[in-house]
Amino acid sequence: MAGSVFGDIFRVTTWGESHGTAVGVAVDGCPAGVRINEEMIQKYMDRRKPGAVKYSTKRREDDEIKILSGVFEGKTTGTPISMLVVNKDHRSADYTEIASYYRPGHADYTFDMKYGFRDYRGGGRSSGRETIGRVAAGAVAMLILGELGISVNAYTKSIGPVCVSGDNMDMDYVKESPVYMPDREASERAEEYLKKCAAEKNSAGGVVECVVRGLPAGIGDPVFDKLDANIAKAVMSIGAVKGIEIGDGFKAAQALGTDNNDGFGVKDGKTVKLSNHSGGVLGGISDGSDFVFRAAFKPTPSVAAKQRSVNRSKEQIDIEIKGRHDPVIVPRAVVVVEAMAAVTITDMLFKGMSATISGIKDFYC
Amino acid sequence: MAGSVFGDIFRVTTWGESHGTAVGVAVDGCPAGVRINEEMIQKYMDRRKPGAVKYSTKRREDDEIKILSGVFEGKTTGTPISMLVVNKDHRSADYTEIASYYRPGHADYTFDMKYGFRDYRGGGRSSGRETIGRVAAGAVAMLILGELGISVNAYTKSIGPVCVSGDNMDMDYVKESPVYMPDREASERAEEYLKKCAAEKNSAGGVVECVVRGLPAGIGDPVFDKLDANIAKAVMSIGAVKGIEIGDGFKAAQALGTDNNDGFGVKDGKTVKLSNHSGGVLGGISDGSDFVFRAAFKPTPSVAAKQRSVNRSKEQIDIEIKGRHDPVIVPRAVVVVEAMAAVTITDMLFKGMSATISGIKDFYC
Amino acid sequence: MAGSVFGDIFRVTTWGESHGTAVGVAVDGCPAGVRINEEMIQKYMDRRKPGAVKYSTKRREDDEIKILSGVFEGKTTGTPISMLVVNKDHRSADYTEIASYYRPGHADYTFDMKYGFRDYRGGGRSSGRETIGRVAAGAVAMLILGELGISVNAYTKSIGPVCVSGDNMDMDYVKESPVYMPDREASERAEEYLKKCAAEKNSAGGVVECVVRGLPAGIGDPVFDKLDANIAKAVMSIGAVKGIEIGDGFKAAQALGTDNNDGFGVKDGKTVKLSNHSGGVLGGISDGSDFVFRAAFKPTPSVAAKQRSVNRSKEQIDIEIKGRHDPVIVPRAVVVVEAMAAVTITDMLFKGMSATISGIKDFYC
Amino acid sequence: MAGSVFGDIFRVTTWGESHGTAVGVAVDGCPAGVRINEEMIQKYMDRRKPGAVKYSTKRREDDEIKILSGVFEGKTTGTPISMLVVNKDHRSADYTEIASYYRPGHADYTFDMKYGFRDYRGGGRSSGRETIGRVAAGAVAMLILGELGISVNAYTKSIGPVCVSGDNMDMDYVKESPVYMPDREASERAEEYLKKCAAEKNSAGGVVECVVRGLPAGIGDPVFDKLDANIAKAVMSIGAVKGIEIGDGFKAAQALGTDNNDGFGVKDGKTVKLSNHSGGVLGGISDGSDFVFRAAFKPTPSVAAKQRSVNRSKEQIDIEIKGRHDPVIVPRAVVVVEAMAAVTITDMLFKGMSATISGIKDFYC
Repeated sequence: MAGSVFGDIFRVTTWGESHGTAVGVAVDGCPAGVRINEEMIQKYMDRRKPGAVKYSTKRREDDEIKILSGVFEGKTTGTPISMLVVNKDHRSADYTEIASYYRPGHADYTFDMKYGFRDYRGGGRSSGRETIGRVAAGAVAMLILGELGISVNAYTKSIGPVCVSGDNMDMDYVKESPVYMPDREASERAEEYLKKCAAEKNSAGGVVECVVRGLPAGIGDPVFDKLDANIAKAVMSIGAVKGIEIGDGFKAAQALGTDNNDGFGVKDGKTVKLSNHSGGVLGGISDGSDFVFRAAFKPTPSVAAKQRSVNRSKEQIDIEIKGRHDPVIVPRAVVVVEAMAAVTITDMLFKGMSATISGIKDFYC
Repeated sequence: MAGSVFGDIFRVTTWGESHGTAVGVAVDGCPAGVRINEEMIQKYMDRRKPGAVKYSTKRREDDEIKILSGVFEGKTTGTPISMLVVNKDHRSADYTEIASYYRPGHADYTFDMKYGFRDYRGGGRSSGRETIGRVAAGAVAMLILGELGISVNAYTKSIGPVCVSGDNMDMDYVKESPVYMPDREASERAEEYLKKCAAEKNSAGGVVECVVRGLPAGIGDPVFDKLDANIAKAVMSIGAVKGIEIGDGFKAAQALGTDNNDGFGVKDGKTVKLSNHSGGVLGGISDGSDFVFRAAFKPTPSVAAKQRSVNRSKEQIDIEIKGRHDPVIVPRAVVVVEAMAAVTITDMLFKGMSATISGIKDFYC
Repeated sequence: MAGSVFGDIFRVTTWGESHGTAVGVAVDGCPAGVRINEEMIQKYMDRRKPGAVKYSTKRREDDEIKILSGVFEGKTTGTPISMLVVNKDHRSADYTEIASYYRPGHADYTFDMKYGFRDYRGGGRSSGRETIGRVAAGAVAMLILGELGISVNAYTKSIGPVCVSGDNMDMDYVKESPVYMPDREASERAEEYLKKCAAEKNSAGGVVECVVRGLPAGIGDPVFDKLDANIAKAVMSIGAVKGIEIGDGFKAAQALGTDNNDGFGVKDGKTVKLSNHSGGVLGGISDGSDFVFRAAFKPTPSVAAKQRSVNRSKEQIDIEIKGRHDPVIVPRAVVVVEAMAAVTITDMLFKGMSATISGIKDFYC
Repeated sequence: MAGSVFGDIFRVTTWGESHGTAVGVAVDGCPAGVRINEEMIQKYMDRRKPGAVKYSTKRREDDEIKILSGVFEGKTTGTPISMLVVNKDHRSADYTEIASYYRPGHADYTFDMKYGFRDYRGGGRSSGRETIGRVAAGAVAMLILGELGISVNAYTKSIGPVCVSGDNMDMDYVKESPVYMPDREASERAEEYLKKCAAEKNSAGGVVECVVRGLPAGIGDPVFDKLDANIAKAVMSIGAVKGIEIGDGFKAAQALGTDNNDGFGVKDGKTVKLSNHSGGVLGGISDGSDFVFRAAFKPTPSVAAKQRSVNRSKEQIDIEIKGRHDPVIVPRAVVVVEAMAAVTITDMLFKGMSATISGIKDFYC
């Protein structure tokens, strides 16, 4: 069980190494009749493309998505959608030195421990390019959610010590911000911080926040398959994520019950929550308010500064990793978080259809 | 898919409502030959028993575990281990009022939205008693891990604003501490804080930390089934958990790459990490150092203070929830966190056995 | 993965050994709102009870089903339904001799090979009592299917060489027939045959046929999760089943294409098949006609006649198995086949709900 | 859940339509270190290639397999192996007429019922080309099984009424036989029969037999995940299969217990079965003797003869399907049966590794 399959009903299988022939994904369980074409997927994919964000790898990749199956006359057919991106920029020669030691903060050591050897070219399967399949699948999920009036929006909440301020929030600014922050002032400070990091051969992490709107109440299953539990797995499975929190998250651990509880009220004849400390989920089931979560990303492990490592002869050495390094991956990860949320929610929506016998009877009879 | 099944190879199915006949679990995939009996399970179960901890429900429950299958002559047989605890203390009458409104912070509203009605007696399936099955399964997992020299230890890291101090850490004190804290001074302050909460008809949350020792490097699968991703799901699926972080977690998002990376060194002829910011996992695979994570629990939603709610006639009302309320559930949740970690790691260990063809050949040939 | 979990959305976990404390099942994924009580389940369970059928074990068991969870005020709640039957009639002493050798045709040898030892009391987990959990889950599935206008009916098609004749088919006679055959004349001949078998310390097998009516077209997924593929697994997983065929089955292998193809016609403005050689499934998806399959059961392996075996000292020995033996299990297996079909179809119906985006929109919007 | 994922640990996801861009497969869970290259896979793939068998489609396809991921320096890396075959021979024009009606015996009608429309070009996802992904995955599984000394061999047992005779069995002849029969005389009669079918615009079915040798005792799990149950699903999921039987299969239903039971004896100090009516499995677990099963294939539904159908305006019409038609698919299906058996057994072997705590300790400690 190499772990590259996600989801139960809307089931995503990704494959591909950084410097193999191609990377891709098979999406099984997409309903028939969703309008789709390569342009729609490409547009979403482009948000993770190196170069779309200023503080990312200079390496130029086209990352042109191809749909190989599951679509006929502009609509999904209900059968697996296979998509791939051919790797154009191999330059494997860059990576020969890396083969001889373990990069701190990378998965080099653990892959060797697990499998006995590794595809050392560019991180192999644990490269950032692994997310291409996730984002392509996420694009399909976003099309499905769009049909149901559900939106998923992620953005950068903080980079290193620079955090978006609630007072300055301007969601329209996200697209303009080179770091995908919804706050012009914070975005500029974050840029300054990243410039400093780069100059010092160092790197930064950050926090991505994601808001799901339009999700009906009742999605998510009690006990193990809670909406937030599945989101936690989905998001923690993204490389470099070290934490995930829902609603008030870790802050709730310090709050008082009366402050943390969301009272209920009536609005337009409907029961509504009077606040949203819970982040849109109660007992693992969506409560009809915005579903809100945050993911913490560690700093990019590839830094040019000198680091301690061990070589194949088990000698202590100092290394300086050459080549192109992002001082931060957070802005590029924003769309990956969004994609994983979309995939998870789609899967949960499909599972939720058999929750009541009356719903099943309405459907079939 | 009501979501009460967890794990792929070591597979746990829990069932039961707070005020039904019984609560229990079926553990499928437990290897044959593990020494086990009811006393061993009971001992582990008792750590979650109300009354074991001072600041928990006064309600007296025996919670006597029964093993119904899967054990023969003191050893597991390889077939499902069914265990249950009969619910002795129903007192359903207490809950009739609760049926008429939605308690803030509870799953009352979302169960109604999902299923059209709910078992309102004591929270039904989203009651704290749901964790009985988890802990019984965790006890089995702990026996397996014990055979492999792997230990899992959780304790209270903070309650409300009171946090254990690194300087005072004394793991032996955990068992003595009424709040399961490894720090006498913090434990006493936490008790003071909880007394104040109770007096003010309020409640507190907190953070549980868990450390897994002896886990070999190489456990966990790349991409979606990362060790930390599966732990995130397992832990976030515990009621009241709002956040989970691995190693440095959210703090890593503010750190510099050079500070966050763990360099490698050589010790006793073995490659080792020189620090453990990663919390024992790189690329989703265990790296041989301690696996460390923390879970944030929100304050107990059941508070005696007045709260805003809505009744069945969709009228805005004020409620005061009567009855016994814990000012905190964190101490009782410690063993639940431990149990979910043990179950997850056991499952990952079993999956990891087919990682290399040489390992498979050694096993079968 | 000990293999006691079946289904993806409607998920059944059975547990229990022949001579353990109890046998049971947890049904996860049952929709909320299904009217249910112990009497309904008991009635279905009674069809497998020893004694209901004349040619079955004389051993008296009450097999009284208890519902422990998932039901509130006479309706399912959407949470797991746990059910069990306490084993009343242990008499373990009967089985001490069996522990010392391998019974031909039983799973004694393979359990020992797999697990290193076995619960030898009455066959342990591979006893016929293992089907109690299946039938209880099947009873729940039958209630769901009933709400949707779908019926599942199994009966004995043949016992040993005695086969029901198409000309004499009388479905009303099944309940009267001691061997559950829909043909009085064949039933009587089968009884004669079984008497002879018993007298000769021998046993017989047979074929069970099952017909599902009212199944809408479109159920089942292409490729691996075909309706017939999942039924094949479900039915082959019943102890003693050695073959399964759909529609014309093995006879189709000898037919000509023009004879085997079912042409299409129009009836009451609807497209219909003009015959049903396919048995109600085309490309793994139900076609709206009756879904028909047959399962072949081998003769009961427990025979009183002398047989060759090997004892624990690896000596060749002759054995004569003492105690009560059914000369046939087929009549008791009829309800097990029905139950497994009901469980499988329920699971497939739930999965089928997300087949089209228009269906999903109708459901959620 | 569109059903294109198979297996739990060794997990195969196939995709692709007959006349789409490509067909392929992602194999997740292949252990690291298996020697593999495109030639090895191609050689296995070629056994299903049209043209390899005389009585198959004249259409020329290269079916050149490409490995896109999961292989590095000639060995599997433990990450997903993505493979595809580009569809070269589209000629969609051939299929426009087919779009207007339902072909008897095909999945046209059921796809329309399920999904609201279908990719009508060449059968879309229910085309024979869907098996390309299965066979490529099977080739990987065969390499793994080969390392463990396990062989899987399938061949044609019968075509229409022409059956291989036990007396003439010559396994070496299979490769020579244009219909993959291990019996020269039967093979020649089958050829005659197929010529007659073709001349009469008709088609034939047949039976494929498969023998697995070298499988250790103890593989397969009790209850639902029996070895034979999973094989039944795997094989029944192949298009056109209408029946599957293990060992004596349907014949066992007519036998007496004493004839059907396999006694035990001692050979070379080992316990062995004295016969193999069971087909190598007892209680769903392999017993160390040859694992033997048979699959019944219906006649190819595409026949040139006139047939009754219904068109889009729901009018009764007569159709004559033009184009190239195989009079039989059985010989080409032989390798597909073998592939599905190999995939299933590989998955079961991997699951079997955690059956005992002593085995787990030997592995990890």
